[in-house]
Amino acid sequence: MRAVDLVVKKRDGGTLSREEIACLIDGYVAGSVPEYQIAAWLMAVYFSGMSRQETGHLTDVMIRSGTVFDLSGIDGPFVDKHSTGGVGDKVSLILAPVVAACGVRVPMMSGRALGHTGGTLDKLEAIEGYTTALPIERFCDVLRDVGYAMTGQSRDVVPADRLLYALRDVTGTVESVPLITASILSKKFAEGSDALVFDVKCGSGAFMKTRQRAHELAESLVETATALGKRVVAVLTRMEQPLGHMVGNFLEVEESIACLRGTVAGHDLQPDPRSADLMEVTLRLAAWMLVLGGACGSVDEGTRLAQRCLEDGSAWERFVRNVELQGGRRAVLEQRYGSFRASERHTITASESGRVQQIDAYKVGMAGVYLGVGRNTADDAVLPHVGIDIHRKRGDGVSSGDALCTVYAENAEALRRATPILEQAFVVGADQVDQSPMILEEITNL
Amino acid sequence: MRAVDLVVKKRDGGTLSREEIACLIDGYVAGSVPEYQIAAWLMAVYFSGMSRQETGHLTDVMIRSGTVFDLSGIDGPFVDKHSTGGVGDKVSLILAPVVAACGVRVPMMSGRALGHTGGTLDKLEAIEGYTTALPIERFCDVLRDVGYAMTGQSRDVVPADRLLYALRDVTGTVESVPLITASILSKKFAEGSDALVFDVKCGSGAFMKTRQRAHELAESLVETATALGKRVVAVLTRMEQPLGHMVGNFLEVEESIACLRGTVAGHDLQPDPRSADLMEVTLRLAAWMLVLGGACGSVDEGTRLAQRCLEDGSAWERFVRNVELQGGRRAVLEQRYGSFRASERHTITASESGRVQQIDAYKVGMAGVYLGVGRNTADDAVLPHVGIDIHRKRGDGVSSGDALCTVYAENAEALRRATPILEQAFVVGADQVDQSPMILEEITNL
Repeated sequence: MRAVDLVVKKRDGGTLSREEIACLIDGYVAGSVPEYQIAAWLMAVYFSGMSRQETGHLTDVMIRSGTVFDLSGIDGPFVDKHSTGGVGDKVSLILAPVVAACGVRVPMMSGRALGHTGGTLDKLEAIEGYTTALPIERFCDVLRDVGYAMTGQSRDVVPADRLLYALRDVTGTVESVPLITASILSKKFAEGSDALVFDVKCGSGAFMKTRQRAHELAESLVETATALGKRVVAVLTRMEQPLGHMVGNFLEVEESIACLRGTVAGHDLQPDPRSADLMEVTLRLAAWMLVLGGACGSVDEGTRLAQRCLEDGSAWERFVRNVELQGGRRAVLEQRYGSFRASERHTITASESGRVQQIDAYKVGMAGVYLGVGRNTADDAVLPHVGIDIHRKRGDGVSSGDALCTVYAENAEALRRATPILEQAFVVGADQVDQSPMILEEITNL
Repeated sequence: MRAVDLVVKKRDGGTLSREEIACLIDGYVAGSVPEYQIAAWLMAVYFSGMSRQETGHLTDVMIRSGTVFDLSGIDGPFVDKHSTGGVGDKVSLILAPVVAACGVRVPMMSGRALGHTGGTLDKLEAIEGYTTALPIERFCDVLRDVGYAMTGQSRDVVPADRLLYALRDVTGTVESVPLITASILSKKFAEGSDALVFDVKCGSGAFMKTRQRAHELAESLVETATALGKRVVAVLTRMEQPLGHMVGNFLEVEESIACLRGTVAGHDLQPDPRSADLMEVTLRLAAWMLVLGGACGSVDEGTRLAQRCLEDGSAWERFVRNVELQGGRRAVLEQRYGSFRASERHTITASESGRVQQIDAYKVGMAGVYLGVGRNTADDAVLPHVGIDIHRKRGDGVSSGDALCTVYAENAEALRRATPILEQAFVVGADQVDQSPMILEEITNL
């Protein structure tokens, strides 16, 4: 079997067999198939697509390129969530303790910020002492004890994806639905999940800008998982404005804590209405994870169960326990709560009265990159205490001069670069604002 | 300018500027743009195509990647011919002396056999002593003296094409009309031609199997040359059966000699009717070259002029003079004429009576590869004295048992492999055979 013939077959719209895909991918990982042939094949896939069965084969071959997590020493089932990435997306920080508190184990493997989108690992590491670099034994201990554990992708897991992703990034082949699908599924299934919920975000702050593209990806994820015999749910959610009101690593930890603690019945913290969209998405994803994990029979029942674990404080307790077990210093966390902010500050105000028509999530995310919330390249460092606190969300009424958001920057230069982008992100006008639900569509193979 | 952005631009159907193409190609030649990005760009070009202007820019950037022949010390104009390659295609060996004899200089840069198609250099080198590796000064001397000179592509000429062609070969991007166009034009114009005639072959033995594909390439060649300000003519010719009756390196030299010498008025050699298709194509291409070179005003006049140079022996004299100047040993050539044949021989006969319906040029070419006429990879050696002599051409009547062709092989193994392919190549049947003209279409920018 010659690699070039497989490239030509794909170029001409053919469907590669499992053996043919293994020839390319295993050869690439082993170094016997050169990068230029894989690059040509990736571009051929971009144009010719892949069948679901073929995408399933690719996923499976990628999974087998490295270590597959063995969680058999712990009672399952294991359910994880994957988000395609957004701005202000701290869903994982709240979702994992909620689902764990309801009795379903979450072995969560997360990513880092890249471009305008944030990363769960960067957020967690804004908690002094918190480590996401857990050896597998320690990961299993935390998972057994708290019901969830947070880690990054190990170098041993799906090495084929690391190689392919880096190559896609420099060959203009990132935006291919089957390639995105295989990348997501291979990592998630290699980590030992039995079932998955996908948060496929859609809008300016998402990877998929249009409803059509998001739907296409969601459908591909579900149908490919079906070909692999895995139970999954894809939820399309809106990502036009940032989710919740905080954008920044420690700021998002704070908002997550407020959501977990503020919903505890009788607690002095009250739920912040600016976090309503965040909680709408989080509860729906949690409910589906509970259905997949067998904790309940319907998504409505799952929602009620999740709500109860928030109100009775058990989700919050799980969060605290997880922070302690993963090395986070609780005293420092509490002491910094509400005050850990970079020193350069600026509040952007409304120049006219009306309603907030739009807060462009992409622009807010890019402002975040300048501040140090995110990174331009994978090697950049991020800062914990910078970011944006959004005071008015889409649809909120404002008077001229009212604060729209406050920016926290490490230095004047970062503030100077981020501010005009944020000013452009906010659009205030006279029109009524239609408040559509956060959940656009759900696709399952249950 | 980042290479990946240019790949994405092409992927999305954009048109690259001259500067953008130079960024990719110059960077590739210099080693600063990696092969995998060029591979992805090539595949994007395969799918998205290139405008004529863009193909012109690519050609021009490729030409400037190396040495451009300077023929200014010799009186021009210089006109060359390029064939897209076929089986039994010895046109160049006859055409160059004819055109030179009519007063138009031909600085001919040819290629080698690859796959089922033959190569002019391999044929010429079947003449004992003949060298095609001429230093530029010597090439100019021969060109000045005889009116034509034959050489291979120097390593200094269009290095970008050598790199790109090797990469296209292993990335499934050979069959792209704009890439083929830039490859052909860059080499031909770098060698100093003022104008060009293209023999775009069409049929089973050609690179372009269908009329549609051949037309597409011809149109691209002419329109891109127009964008570069060069005068060209593309002639679409049939390549369904081998051209002429000999397929083999020395065998084709012999047929060329017979055509040059047999047309001399009063000579004892008579024109062989099996070479009629070869001469039809050769005379038409010669006529256009004479028009382009300013030797006559019309293609009909050019045909008469070429015919006259054949009949008065001046073309034959040029051939002999060229052989001598390029190191060929004339005495050995004459001594071997009609007898230089490999020892293993087999004659394939008709198993029924009727007419030859078809002689599949591709199959004959592939049989030639097994015999050693051509090569599978660029490193294979070729043999001078092997090949196939076709006794009956398409449309000829045969009786059962009549000889269809004779195969000359180096050893029994090669004979055993080539024979069944040749048996399949010949189809004899009862139907009348439509004898269409060899010239299918002509496209010019004159």
